[in-house]
Amino acid sequence: MSLRENLQRLGIVLPPVSGPFGAYIPAKRVGNLVFVAGQLPVKDGQIMALGPVPSRCSIEQAQAAARQCAINCLAAVQSLGPGAVDALVGVVRVGAFVNSDATFTQQPQVANAASELFMELFGDAGKHARAAVGVNTLPRDASVEIDAIFETR
Amino acid sequence: MSLRENLQRLGIVLPPVSGPFGAYIPAKRVGNLVFVAGQLPVKDGQIMALGPVPSRCSIEQAQAAARQCAINCLAAVQSLGPGAVDALVGVVRVGAFVNSDATFTQQPQVANAASELFMELFGDAGKHARAAVGVNTLPRDASVEIDAIFETR
Amino acid sequence: MSLRENLQRLGIVLPPVSGPFGAYIPAKRVGNLVFVAGQLPVKDGQIMALGPVPSRCSIEQAQAAARQCAINCLAAVQSLGPGAVDALVGVVRVGAFVNSDATFTQQPQVANAASELFMELFGDAGKHARAAVGVNTLPRDASVEIDAIFETR
Repeated sequence: MSLRENLQRLGIVLPPVSGPFGAYIPAKRVGNLVFVAGQLPVKDGQIMALGPVPSRCSIEQAQAAARQCAINCLAAVQSLGPGAVDALVGVVRVGAFVNSDATFTQQPQVANAASELFMELFGDAGKHARAAVGVNTLPRDASVEIDAIFETR
Repeated sequence: MSLRENLQRLGIVLPPVSGPFGAYIPAKRVGNLVFVAGQLPVKDGQIMALGPVPSRCSIEQAQAAARQCAINCLAAVQSLGPGAVDALVGVVRVGAFVNSDATFTQQPQVANAASELFMELFGDAGKHARAAVGVNTLPRDASVEIDAIFETR
Repeated sequence: MSLRENLQRLGIVLPPVSGPFGAYIPAKRVGNLVFVAGQLPVKDGQIMALGPVPSRCSIEQAQAAARQCAINCLAAVQSLGPGAVDALVGVVRVGAFVNSDATFTQQPQVANAASELFMELFGDAGKHARAAVGVNTLPRDASVEIDAIFETR
């Protein structure tokens, strides 16, 4: 199944990415790599998970947020133009920054929600290298920020 | 206008990058990508912004520091040899780490100062993907650290 | 001397990397780049350095941990199949996340232990760009996490 078919099967509609953008853009292509900017868990215009895990955001909420970040990574690719999402062939690397209390050490469990979505969408080609770390704060007080490198045709 | 002309127009003189270097070097080229090491806001041998934002470093100071990091990213490319800076054709990705109080959530506003300088210098080719995150401390107590991936001829 | 010979000379045996893996894998190749996932300082199944530097982990322990992370980066490449480690030609970029007390600012000194091992193993081709930052916590309470991009034949 294609990425587009898998999105449909999972009921995922990529949110529109509207410009104009500034110096910092959602995605940049170089050769057969697409570098996607760090995505926050924005859904319907709202950050869906705020503050550090677990004091202000549960692991479950953070996982849902990480999944949304992954969706937003794909949405960001739309900014490269029509067909850019369909041209993706796999996921190369994912960086996951989890807003964490100093005692929280399960960042991988949070990031897994993004990684698993990528594999559901891309199959084996969705498997990727990943770095997941804790940070003491994130933009707009988000609980998770995820960036990605995709491979494209 | 070329990158060199834009540097001159903005009155920016790239600081020299002097060797010898160790195992860790300012920049590494592979194919048409140049990976630049994380740059601190060093100016005239001094870190120009210290400590977390905003308790010890104002947003304005952090923005000036981010701009200096961007200048130092370009300076780092000089280590690849004569002509390396002139061979750059654009900016692919910027990583911005902002030394942040736990309540500070405006890392993008800080990073914008670096992103905007890159666009002033490269024009549209300076637009890039970016991840900006908060961290609780940085090397030498700097307020900002920025790394970059450039595209080169 | 080859990488393999240098490993032997230094008495380093790469730990096995056993599958099956999930959506997140130890290493992913694209073109002539190998992206390695963030490695923790696991040795003989145990994290060898826990907690922030320096309150719970000394700089010396963190350096030993960073060296182990570098070894584990190479071990991760084994997951790409027989010959994958021998096909490596150099190190492009290293990312070092050091679990840090807010007052600790010597992340580069910790990361150097990884960088220096790469140069011992690869010679000049082991020189790399690097970003070293502090973070307030890491997966499994590790003191260091290191990811890498290698160049391969």
